[in-house]
Order: sequence, then structure tokens, then C-alpha cells
Amino acid sequence: MEGLREVKKDHSREGSGIDIEGSFEGTTEEREFNSMREPVLLRNRKNNTSQFHIFGANVCPIESLDYEIAENKCFKQEWRSRKKVELYQYVFLKWTFALLIGLGTGLVGFFNNLVVENIAGFKLLLTNNLMLKDKYYLAFASYAGCNMILAIVAAALCAYVAPAAAGSGIPEVKAYLNGVDAQSILAPTTLFVKIFGSIFGVASGFVVGMEGPMAHIGACIAFLLGQGGSRKYHLTWNWLRYFKNDRDRRDLVTCGAAAGVAAAFRAPVGGVLFALEEAASWWRSALLWRTFFTTAVVAVVLRGFLEFCQTGKCGLYGQGGLIMFDASSRKATYNTADLLAVIFLGVLGGILGSFYNYCIDKVLRTYSIINGRGPSFKILLVIFISFLTSCCSYGLPWLAPCIPCPTHLSELCPTKGRSGNYKNFHCPSNYYNDLASLFFNTSDYAIRNMLTSSAEKRFKFATLLVFFVATYGLGIITYGIAIPSGLFIPVILAGASCGRLAGKMLDPLTSLDVGLFALLGAASFLGGTMRMTVSLCVILLELTNDLLMLPLMMLVILISKTVADIFNKGIYDQIVKLKGLPYMEAHAEPYLRNLVASDVVSGPLIAFSGVERVGNILHALKITGHNGFPVIDEPPHTEAPELCGLVLRSHLLVLLKAKKFTKERVMTGSGIVNMFKELDFAKAGSGKGVKLEDLEFSEEEMEMYVDLHPITNTSPYTVVETTSLAKAAVLFRELGLRHLCVVPKTAGRPPIVGILTRHDFMPEHILGLYPHFKPHN
Amino acid sequence: MEGLREVKKDHSREGSGIDIEGSFEGTTEEREFNSMREPVLLRNRKNNTSQFHIFGANVCPIESLDYEIAENKCFKQEWRSRKKVELYQYVFLKWTFALLIGLGTGLVGFFNNLVVENIAGFKLLLTNNLMLKDKYYLAFASYAGCNMILAIVAAALCAYVAPAAAGSGIPEVKAYLNGVDAQSILAPTTLFVKIFGSIFGVASGFVVGMEGPMAHIGACIAFLLGQGGSRKYHLTWNWLRYFKNDRDRRDLVTCGAAAGVAAAFRAPVGGVLFALEEAASWWRSALLWRTFFTTAVVAVVLRGFLEFCQTGKCGLYGQGGLIMFDASSRKATYNTADLLAVIFLGVLGGILGSFYNYCIDKVLRTYSIINGRGPSFKILLVIFISFLTSCCSYGLPWLAPCIPCPTHLSELCPTKGRSGNYKNFHCPSNYYNDLASLFFNTSDYAIRNMLTSSAEKRFKFATLLVFFVATYGLGIITYGIAIPSGLFIPVILAGASCGRLAGKMLDPLTSLDVGLFALLGAASFLGGTMRMTVSLCVILLELTNDLLMLPLMMLVILISKTVADIFNKGIYDQIVKLKGLPYMEAHAEPYLRNLVASDVVSGPLIAFSGVERVGNILHALKITGHNGFPVIDEPPHTEAPELCGLVLRSHLLVLLKAKKFTKERVMTGSGIVNMFKELDFAKAGSGKGVKLEDLEFSEEEMEMYVDLHPITNTSPYTVVETTSLAKAAVLFRELGLRHLCVVPKTAGRPPIVGILTRHDFMPEHILGLYPHFKPHN
Repeated sequence: MEGLREVKKDHSREGSGIDIEGSFEGTTEEREFNSMREPVLLRNRKNNTSQFHIFGANVCPIESLDYEIAENKCFKQEWRSRKKVELYQYVFLKWTFALLIGLGTGLVGFFNNLVVENIAGFKLLLTNNLMLKDKYYLAFASYAGCNMILAIVAAALCAYVAPAAAGSGIPEVKAYLNGVDAQSILAPTTLFVKIFGSIFGVASGFVVGMEGPMAHIGACIAFLLGQGGSRKYHLTWNWLRYFKNDRDRRDLVTCGAAAGVAAAFRAPVGGVLFALEEAASWWRSALLWRTFFTTAVVAVVLRGFLEFCQTGKCGLYGQGGLIMFDASSRKATYNTADLLAVIFLGVLGGILGSFYNYCIDKVLRTYSIINGRGPSFKILLVIFISFLTSCCSYGLPWLAPCIPCPTHLSELCPTKGRSGNYKNFHCPSNYYNDLASLFFNTSDYAIRNMLTSSAEKRFKFATLLVFFVATYGLGIITYGIAIPSGLFIPVILAGASCGRLAGKMLDPLTSLDVGLFALLGAASFLGGTMRMTVSLCVILLELTNDLLMLPLMMLVILISKTVADIFNKGIYDQIVKLKGLPYMEAHAEPYLRNLVASDVVSGPLIAFSGVERVGNILHALKITGHNGFPVIDEPPHTEAPELCGLVLRSHLLVLLKAKKFTKERVMTGSGIVNMFKELDFAKAGSGKGVKLEDLEFSEEEMEMYVDLHPITNTSPYTVVETTSLAKAAVLFRELGLRHLCVVPKTAGRPPIVGILTRHDFMPEHILGLYPHFKPHN
Repeated sequence: MEGLREVKKDHSREGSGIDIEGSFEGTTEEREFNSMREPVLLRNRKNNTSQFHIFGANVCPIESLDYEIAENKCFKQEWRSRKKVELYQYVFLKWTFALLIGLGTGLVGFFNNLVVENIAGFKLLLTNNLMLKDKYYLAFASYAGCNMILAIVAAALCAYVAPAAAGSGIPEVKAYLNGVDAQSILAPTTLFVKIFGSIFGVASGFVVGMEGPMAHIGACIAFLLGQGGSRKYHLTWNWLRYFKNDRDRRDLVTCGAAAGVAAAFRAPVGGVLFALEEAASWWRSALLWRTFFTTAVVAVVLRGFLEFCQTGKCGLYGQGGLIMFDASSRKATYNTADLLAVIFLGVLGGILGSFYNYCIDKVLRTYSIINGRGPSFKILLVIFISFLTSCCSYGLPWLAPCIPCPTHLSELCPTKGRSGNYKNFHCPSNYYNDLASLFFNTSDYAIRNMLTSSAEKRFKFATLLVFFVATYGLGIITYGIAIPSGLFIPVILAGASCGRLAGKMLDPLTSLDVGLFALLGAASFLGGTMRMTVSLCVILLELTNDLLMLPLMMLVILISKTVADIFNKGIYDQIVKLKGLPYMEAHAEPYLRNLVASDVVSGPLIAFSGVERVGNILHALKITGHNGFPVIDEPPHTEAPELCGLVLRSHLLVLLKAKKFTKERVMTGSGIVNMFKELDFAKAGSGKGVKLEDLEFSEEEMEMYVDLHPITNTSPYTVVETTSLAKAAVLFRELGLRHLCVVPKTAGRPPIVGILTRHDFMPEHILGLYPHFKPHN
């Protein structure tokens, strides 16, 4: 029995996941399938079950997703009898879901913006009114107070209701689409908190955006739809069975993430490319079309609402918070000096972008200590940052001198209250404060301000410098606190101000407009932090609605990404790693070529016989968290022991629940197959499947036998033990596996050596076993 | 010996590839690796070699590409000693190539258009001048004569120089990117003929486009670059060794195809999405960025040239043949009746599009008989079609009445000679012939004409009907003749005229402009024939430069694709199948689940021992066309026979050429490993590698032994014989394999059952073995 206990012990050195907001410690996968060379057939272990307590109770929330089709007899039976009409149902449902995801995400995207603009507008109006009466301290108090109350609500939601909703959400969605199933990532409560937390967070004046959260919201909506109905309340619909597997849910979530980005930027093509480039780990041509359909629906929904709002029925909702910059009047030719300026901007963005990532990493590690102390500390941190932000955005504009309003403006100058480009702030009438028009505005307006051409608006050098330093710093210290916080807006703000600053400095040398410099600066910073390329390009093109800027944009992103890649990884990859999510990289690390598959499988492997004693199965399920068990056919059923296939924990539980046992060790044949429908084995929603604790068996039943053949996947993917680990990793990743069987090379040994899981490919695991290998980079 | 001869015989029932233009009959793969359950170890066969003639001489030109890394000792040795600087060289070279591909494709794209516009302009000018003198018969003679001469030149190039250059080229590129290596597909002669054949073909007035050929040209340019230099003339560059493998060449060709489409449509994003959606079978995030860079370079190059041409230095080159329609002034709102009209258009496009595919299929089968008789018949066919086209485009406008020129035009009316919207044709001065302005123009101008809004130009109902029927019919009978012929333009022409026709009919019901109807009609027809979705949408958006049309465009493409999918497959898939190219579908056919891997492997399998007699190897290489051989370690080297790995034919030839043989059956160890560099085993350009015929050995050498371990890939992917064929197919396709080893399930049998190749997954092969299975669809 001691040998079996090893299963848990073996990987106790793992668990380096740092407890930042929404992080997940340890994994079931870590404990899963630590196998040894000789499989242990639980044959003669009667009456031992009671000795073990049930590990299921403290199972960690991270599982792997399983994209492999379990080709067992039950599946084949069902599949053969499948009718043509079911295919049509499936296709119809897929497209309906795409439509619904688009509608839902578009709606939420609009709602969020509407509420944020109204709350922020009200807040600014209130402060402004007090300032007009020269009650400056009261104005600050009301401004900081509003911000703080909103921040506390957002933080409380995150801290108490759904910690997984904090942060950007894109790393989590990325991990989910890579096959990491931390259940809370896409749970309904996360969706709820993400929506409202993001509204209050953005409205409270933090330097955060809602682009990342929108992607997460889209993914949550898609996941909810895929869960479909509730068996508990008999609200389930038979058609929904098609989506009760990880493959179809993955497709839905991909659509959802694309829809979210499309809604955030009103960029349907950009959303699709974002999902393709950054979010998804697997992609199919068919999915491209469905995703595009979803984002187009989002675009239509948003356009409808915005047209409605242009009639003025949306309160303080102005030009549309959904950013859309009109920058189509720039000149399209440029000379060598311009190109050199753009290259300089790219290098600058690369360096400052990677430094941004470095700082965020440090800040996250610090915050994880504070946040780890409990929800109240989380909220205290949020209060502190909120106060600091209020001080900056209210205090810094006082440093700026008042500027007389230019004449011949189509716009109102100065604007008092609500959003506008020429904020009056503390200045006398007919004067405006240019720093206030950046700080004392919503982020969308600040960005619009930055991108206006020099013909329309000039900023002072000092103004830009102060704004750049403030947003760069605040952006870094704000990410990681317990509110939903997107990274796009802070980076765009810092990038645009830095770009405009550079443009102002290089003005004598180049003929490019400072507004264009601001845009290129934003592109360069985004390239330097997020390391996205095509999707960024297309998103920015769609935002500015001008295809002619493409070449400069590409150049600057290319350079900034290349420069930044020298220093560190992209910010989302960094956060994924920091959260300890077991992400499978697309490319196998080179050092894996020095190892073979059998080098990393370890620990005792628990295998079942083709017809197994019920007690043994229960015992194995209890003592391990494994999700897959090899099934071995043995004499007298076969001449020599041979690998029959792989059986899944969830399928075993369903089979056990049916209690079709026999007294003798015999194969029950096709009788059992007909008893089950595929739906019985479908993946249940979180926490809804058959649980081990719910199963109760009499002593007599424990001694009986059950035939595992009907539920054994007879076609598991295998590698020979001497296969290089790099090749095994490619196989595992490309096919989206959860279990990869390692079979022996030489005859005469037991037919399975071990099982590789996601965990076994993680650099931490491998470098733990072989510390002398150095990872590339 | 008879047993070994079976290798060839076994699949003689294959070879259903129809000999249409550029088709390829039979495949080496068909003969490759027809394996039996007991591997034949060529041990005791001395002195038999002379009995066999060398099959290598009649090896068919179709091979598979091999994307797997052969992880043998030589590779590992080289890889371990690889320096950091080599990585930088590799990255630098990749981007340089992307740049060069972009430059080259952009240049060719511009050159083609320039020449076509000038030739076509000259031809039309000549004809017009004769018509002005009322010499109508002479005008026809000169028109038809010019067309015919141009057509004959194009056809002669195709028939005698490079038959593979005929047709669209997209199916071939698609097949190449799927792993089919028909060497002539991307050869330099194909490139040459494609460029000039396409110029003369389009200039000769055929209803063909150069969009497909441009994609092929881009791919050819990329492939040429990837081949890199010439070892024969010592013009090779050491850095180019990185591209001497199928993986990197595939990436280059993907970039090239995208660049070609981008050049054809001036649509950089559309080009990338085309490569992603239609052309590529494997895709990586990194590739997205490189492809986008390439297409952006193309866009910059084209813009530069077009700006140069706007100064009027490009002869008869007008507004730019590179189509770019300005349709940005349409209204963006629509009501229910409009939507119904669009849905009707979608259904119509779906039906007529799939009928187009059906007709093309029939026509291709007919033409393949004619073309099969020899080059002269090919040219006769081209002459016939050219005459027919000339008759239509010169004759039909006579049916149309003369229309008085509208006043207040910014444009010249009537236009005499060169391209223009109001062709005078036979009409008196101040009158124009609206059918002639469609027929008697280049296709680009005809399409522009179709897309103009009703406010600017009205077409008569009969005019549109005649033009629609003529282009639909001519488009069908033109594809398949021996000239490079793109399908985009014919389909757009037919679709736009049909759409405008429908718009005219539905005018009382809808408020949409007929120009918009023409655009949607083109989208609908393209969706119905090519079944592309996102890339079509984006290409059309980029052509018309108006994002607001996205929702209607998507709707119409969605409907037409869905409707057309009921009837048949997309046109490119259809042509790939008709050409007999062994294309691996992304999804495994459902009936494959009923079979296991060992069901399809058949015939004798030839395996080598770890240390093998030279004579045996030579013998095996001579009698089979196999490209991979399993290597089996046997006693006394191991306890029982076990699978060591897989050795490639090309590697064997290199090893044999080095003549490091031993008298005794012993392992030579690492000595041999150090002898070779990775470059020695790199894939040589077509026809440049070591050939079996070049190897000569003395009787003594034939009796010696050679150690195969250094070149044996010890990590081949394997499946157990009982794995379902569906899963094996997924593995094979997703990992881009060429050989998939099938290992036995039970111990005590030889360690390999057979090898699956591309051929074994082809429906023709499987349904030949198991006729009772019915393919889905």
C-alpha cells in the first residue's frame, strides 16, 4: 500500500504557481499518472478500501481538457446509428450559437460602454460643478470619493464573489483554449463579476481598459451557452448533447473571445485575427468562418445601438466610448527621414514595452503576497491605488498653465463638465488646461485627443511628458489589483503619448504628423508588450479606418516586437506562466530532443484488467486523482497481456453507477453497450457529473466484476518508449491530447510503460528531473 | 523473387487520375509501402540484383513531402553543436526571403498588368480605327487575328514548355501545401510559362483572369528562392542549407501564394486570409506574421508603381488594371425587403455557382480526352475557343441598339479606342453601345462598369442578360484549355452581371442600388463556386474599400456557400480530385472509424537489419520505389528483434555513396556520424540529389556491410495495428507525416506490421479494398 501512496508524493516539489489574483495552485494533472514501468494490476487487494481516505475531496480545480474522441464500443454503437438529421441539427445549432454569442457579446459590449460613459460623465460633471464654484478641495473629495466607492464595489465583487474575474482575462482564455480547464475561469459568476467589476473599475478612473475583460466576457458567454440548460431543473434540450464535449466547447469559446475583442474595438476582422493569433491554440478553416460570422453579428449589433444613441437618448453617452478614431486624412507618402523616425519609434516601443512587462512581472509578484493575505487586503490595495490615481489625475493638471482657446473651432472650447477635448478645469473662461483634457477624461477621449493632428490641436512638451510618465507608471501598478483590468488601454495611452512626444521632438526632421506619431507610438508599445502582430495591425487599421497606414504600422510593430523579444516574453505568456497554468507551447523546446518518452514517466502506474473487480476500481479511483487508466487484456482472454486501451475516470463512474456487475470474471458482450447512450458519457457541466462520493456499494457488489471493454477507448495514441520527447510533445500538442500512452519497445514486458500527460511536458517538471538541461531562452 | 515483384502489381487498379491539362497519372506513393504483416528481411539474397531492372527510370513525378524531422544520430550531432549565431542567420534569412518574395511577386504582378493593358489597348485601338473607317469585316479579322495569335503563343508555351502551367494553379499550390510534391508544379519553367502564358492569355480576350495564376506565380517565386542557388555552378550559399527541407519550403510557398493573391487584388489582408483559408493545410501563428509582412511589401511595391504610372509614362496603361473598385458611396441602411432580395441573390448564386462547378467538371473531362492526344490538339482547341470568344465579343454588341450619350459626364463619351466606359463601337458619333462597353473592354473595366451605381450608368435589361449568358458560358468552356486561366474574373463577371440583372428586376421592391447588387452578385457567385468565405469577404472589402458593406456581403456568401455545398464540392477541391492529386482532407471520413490501421496495409514490406549488407540495400532500392524503410535490430545486437526506426531512401543513397563499409556485421559507432554534416542529408532540389543509377559498386563491396544506425530516425511516429483508421488519419494529417509505422499489438511477432503512407488514406484505395463502405456525402 505504501507504494500506492507514492502517487501523491511524487510531484510534491511542484506547485510553484504564485498566488496572484485568480491564480491556481497545484494541479490534479501534477498528480495524475505518475507511472512506473511495471503497471500495478489491482488484483488481489480486497478489503483494503477503507484504509484510504478519498482524495477526491481535495482535488485542485485545474484539469486538462480532452479533445480526443474516446472511440469505445458505446461511442461506435451510437455513432453508427446516427441519422443524417442529427448532422443538420448539429450544424444548425452551431450557427445558432455563433449568432447568440455575437448578439450577447455585442449587447454586453454596448451596455458596458453606456454605463461607464454615464457614470464617468456624471462624476466629471459633479467635480466640474464644484470647481466652477472654486470649491477645489471639495471637488477633489467628491472626485476621489466617487472613484473610491466605485473601486471598492469592483474590488469587493472580485475579492468575495469571483477571484478569477480579476485581471485581463486574456491569459486565462488563452490557457483554456490551450487545454487547461480551471473550472472557475469561465464560470457564470466570473461572467457576472467581470461585467460589473469591469464597469465600475473603468468608471472609477483607473488606468485600465475593458478590452481584455471583453474578450473574457465573450468567452464566458460562449461557455455558458455551450453548457446549455440545466439537468437539475430538467431544462436541458436533447440537441445540446452535441456540445457536451471539450472539442465543441473549445470552438465556442474561440468564437466568444473573438466576439469580445470585436465588440471592444468594433473591429470584426481584427477580432477574428486576435482569436487566431493570440487566443487559440488549435484552429480549423471551418472555425474561421464561424468566428467571422460571430464578429460580424457583433458589429451589426453595435452599429444598431450606436445609431440609436446618436439620437441623444443615451444620457451622457457621447461620441461612442467604443473607440473608433478617425484618422483618414493623413498623407500617405513619406521619405527616408520619416522612415528613420518610425524605426526609432519602433526601437523605443520595443525597449519600453519589454520594460513594462518586466515591471508588471515584479509588481504582480509583490501584489500576490498582499492579495494572498485575504479579501480585505485586496480591497485595501485597491483603495490605495485608487487614491493614488485620483491624486495624479486631479493634482497633475494644476501644474499645467492655462492656454487661451483657439478660435475657429468646430468644437466647444472650453468644455465644462462631461467629456470633451478642451477641458476648462481650474482655468478662467475662454482658457483651457491641456493636461486636464487628457487626465480629466475617459481613456477613450484621452486617446482621441492624442491622435488628433497638429493642425487641430497642439500639446505642450511638458504636458505630454507628464502624461506619459503618469500613465506608464499607473498602468504598471494598477494591473494586478483585484479588479478586472484590461491592458490595451494603458499601453495605448502610454504609447500614444510617448509617440506624440517623439513626434514633437523629431518635428524638425520629419514631415509626418504628430497625430500619426501618436498612433505609431501606440502600435509600437502594443507590439512591445503583447507581441501580437497581424491582429494588432488590423485592429488599429479598423479603428482608424485607413488602409494606407498599413506599411508604417507594420514596420513599427515588426521592429518593436523584434526588439522586445530579445528581453522577455509577451505579457500574456508571462502572466500565464506566473499563474502556474500548465500551458503547452506550440514548439517543443530543443532540449527535449535529448530525452526520450520513458525518461519523464515515473511513479507507479495503475492499470485495470479488461474485466475488473469493482472493489479494485473503486479503490484506484479513490487513491488517485488520475483521469485515465490503461486497460490490459490478460490470459485467459488473450494469449499474452496486451494493451486493450484507455478508460476515462468519468466513464468508469457512469459504468459503476449502472451496477451491471457479474459474479464471474466474464465478458458481458454487447448487452451493456446497448444500455448506454452516448449522452450518458458526455462531459457534464462543472460539478454536475457522477461523483465518486455518491457511489455506494455493498460488500457483495465490491467482490463482483465489471466488463470495461464497452467503455475502453481502443484507439489511444501511443508512442514507443524510445521516442524522443520532442516528438511526443509535438504529437501531444497538435492532437490536443490529455493522455498519451507510452508502450515498450521490446517484447516480453508488460504492454504499457506509462502515460504522459500535460504535466510531464512542463519545463518545470522536466528540468526538475534533469537540472543540467538548459531551456532555450 | 515473385513475392517481391508484387510490390508493383498490387495497386495497378489505381491511376484514375484523368489526363486533363497538367494532370499527373499514377503516383510513386501508390506503389510505396504496400506492406505485409511479416517484414521481409533481405538477408540471403545474393547475386540476384541483376535480375531486376531499375524501376527508378519510370518513377512517376508525384512524391509526398516529408515534414517530419528525421531524428537520427547525424541530425542530433549537428543539432547539438549548433551555435546561437546560426539561429540568427536562419531568422534573418526567413525575413529576407519574405521580403524578396514580396518584391518579386509585386513586380511580376505589376509587369503582367502593364503588358496586358498595353497589348489589349493596342488591339482595341487597331480594331476601332478600322471600324471608324467602316471596314467592319477587316476590323473583325484584325481583332480575331490578334486574339488568335496571342492565344496560340500562350497555348504553345503551355503545350510544349510547361504543361503544368495551364489552368488556375491554385489547386496545384493547394496540393503542394498539403504535402503533394509533383515536381513540375513549382518548377522555374512553370513560372516562366505562367507569367507569359497568363499575359498572352488574358490579353487575347479570353474570359479568364490572372488572379489564380498570380497565386501560382507567387508560390513559384517562393519555391525558387527556397531552392536557393545552384550547387552545379557552385553558386550555393552556406546559409541556404536551412531551407533545404520540406518544412521551410512549405512556409515559403505559403507566403508566396498569399503574396500572389495580394498582388492580384491589391488586398494584403485578403491575401493572408486566402492563404490561411484556402491554400494552406498547416498553419502556425508565426507564419501569419511573416505572410502578412510579405503581402504588405507587395502592397507597397504596387502602390509605388501605380503612382509612377499615374504620371502617364506607362503607355496605354489606364486607371490600373489591378482591380480596385470604388464603391464607398453606397448607403448603409437597409430594410426587410432589401434583406429578402439579398437572400434571393445568395440562393441564386449558390445554385448557379454549383452548376458552374458541375459544368466545369464535365468540360474538363471532355477536354482531357482532346488534350491527351498531344500538343497540337491542345493548340487546336485553344484556337477554336479563341475564335468563339472573338465572335461573341465582336458579334454580340451588334445586337444592341445605339444609345445617345448622356450629358454632364465627367468622362469622355463615346470613347473611341482604348479602354473606357462608353464604347462607340459601330454607333454614330455621340452614341454609344452599352454591350460593347462590356464585351469590348478588358475584364477589369467590364467589372468596373457593372459596379457603377445606377445614378451614373444604366444598362438595358437585354444587354445584361446577353452578357451574363455569354460570360457564364464562355467562362465554363474556357477553363481547361491549355493556357493559364484564373477563375476569379469569369465568376466575378458572371456574378456581377447576374446580380445587376436581379437588381434591375427587383428594383420596384428594394431600395438597394444596382451597383451594390452587382457586387453582392459577384460575392454570391464566388461563394457558390469557390466556397471561400472570410478571405472572399475581406478581398471584396479591400477591393471596394468600404467596411460598411460587410454584413450584407457575409450574408450573401454564407447563403450561397451553404446552398452550393448541398450539390457538390468547391471548384478547387474538384480540380484537385480530377487531377488525381492525393490530397489529405482535414477531417477523417466517418467510415474510417470502422477500419483499423492493419486493414489497409498490404503487400510485402521490405525492412533492413540495423547493420545491413550493401547488396541487399541496393537490391531493395532498385526493386521498389519506397522512400522509407524500417530498420530492425536483431540478435545478437538485441535480445529479440525490435524496431530501431525508419531510414529514408535519400539518406541511404548518401550513405552508400560515402562507401564506409565493413567486412563484418559490426556497428561502426560514432565514426560515421562525424563524417557527415546535416547538409549532406538535406533535401536536394528537384533532380539534384544522389541518384541510384550513379552508384557503382564492385562485387566485393556488394558483399560488405554498412551500419544504418547513424541515419536511422529512431523516433518515427507509430500506431498500434488495432488503432482505428480515423485516428491514424488524424495523426498522419495533423503532423504532416510521410510514413506512419504500424506496430503489432501482441508480443512475439515481428516488430513492425507495415507502414501507412498518404496513399493508404485515399478514399479510392480504401473503398477499393472495402467496397461496401460508403463515403459520407
